[in-house]
Amino acid sequence: MQNEEKFTVNVSQTVKTRLPRYYRYLGKLIKEGTLRISSNELAGLMHVTASQIRQDLNCFGGFGHQGYGYNVRFLYNKIAEILGLDEHYKIVIIDEGNLGSSLTALARLRNRGDDIKALFDVTGARIGQSLVGVPILPKENFVEFCNREKIDIAVLAVPETGVEPAAELVRQTGIRGVLNFSSIHPDLPDNVAIEEVHLDDPLLLLCYDIKHASQDEGNKKQ
Amino acid sequence: MQNEEKFTVNVSQTVKTRLPRYYRYLGKLIKEGTLRISSNELAGLMHVTASQIRQDLNCFGGFGHQGYGYNVRFLYNKIAEILGLDEHYKIVIIDEGNLGSSLTALARLRNRGDDIKALFDVTGARIGQSLVGVPILPKENFVEFCNREKIDIAVLAVPETGVEPAAELVRQTGIRGVLNFSSIHPDLPDNVAIEEVHLDDPLLLLCYDIKHASQDEGNKKQ
Repeated sequence: MQNEEKFTVNVSQTVKTRLPRYYRYLGKLIKEGTLRISSNELAGLMHVTASQIRQDLNCFGGFGHQGYGYNVRFLYNKIAEILGLDEHYKIVIIDEGNLGSSLTALARLRNRGDDIKALFDVTGARIGQSLVGVPILPKENFVEFCNREKIDIAVLAVPETGVEPAAELVRQTGIRGVLNFSSIHPDLPDNVAIEEVHLDDPLLLLCYDIKHASQDEGNKKQ
Repeated sequence: MQNEEKFTVNVSQTVKTRLPRYYRYLGKLIKEGTLRISSNELAGLMHVTASQIRQDLNCFGGFGHQGYGYNVRFLYNKIAEILGLDEHYKIVIIDEGNLGSSLTALARLRNRGDDIKALFDVTGARIGQSLVGVPILPKENFVEFCNREKIDIAVLAVPETGVEPAAELVRQTGIRGVLNFSSIHPDLPDNVAIEEVHLDDPLLLLCYDIKHASQDEGNKKQ
């Protein structure tokens, strides 16, 4: 990417939240061997309008050519670059015996080749063990470890009561971003980015789908 | 809720996806003992405009009173009802040795008091055991169990290769909704609702935040 022209990224908050979706669909297209795609075809796949696709992709510099469509791999790499995936951030996980969140986070993150440096077990129960090749360390080592290894991201896989103690640790490091699985917002300086994971939301939407599908059925029968 | 006036729910796809967010914020307000809230205050909390709040809540029948704001618990219950959370759907999980997804799903779902009836372990390794009180059963029992227990929802916590075999099982039951943790779309009849969980997306957005925060820093220093 180094030899390409630098462009100004001017992305609204709304367009930003759609980037991971573009990234996923383009990744699928690459796997399927698709080289080029028109905005109409991409719109059909993603269930949005072609004009939204064109508008969104224009924000990133507009890589499409009239009549030729988009070069799938170029667009994929460009979006990866905009998302910062070319930066290879270093990650640690703080876990409070909630093996589930950790394992999931680990497995998912590792699929993308992210660099998970350690898992900090707040309960102390698994210290000295390792998980998928990632060492499990005590929380007492957190600050020194993160500063020494120049860790960028902390994943908070702790319940509500563990959020403030975890934030207290993060505040003593140079960590630049936090991925928070809890429903409590961690108290961190403005220069630390926070993204929240709401695992419950898709289930709530599914309940909505089911309820309203059966209401529609009921209405049809009347 | 039975004695309340029935109203037509006329919710766009966009407003629908915002419902879990309202539900979460209102739940927090209830925990904090807040009885009433104005659209301006709610907008401040949720980082959206007051006019969007008023517009969204109007779709559900408009429960606000000029000058009084919204009754938090009433609105919370109403959104729960619209989301179908008053229906107590019965849930099973299909798992392929991916303990992580299962445990997470289990823990999160149980927090909301959902009714998880069984975990089906496709690998067979944990059959006969139980997890947080949920029995672990062999996949051979899936169809008979789901039909007998009138299961509504299946959670697919399987890797890509496990999606089609799991969908094959689901097609033989009366299951009405599927929560899919894989990146492969399961092939199911139109009357089965599907919601996808994209665990990676928040991490991608966090990478974006960090990259562009440091770019802004860089620009300031120049």
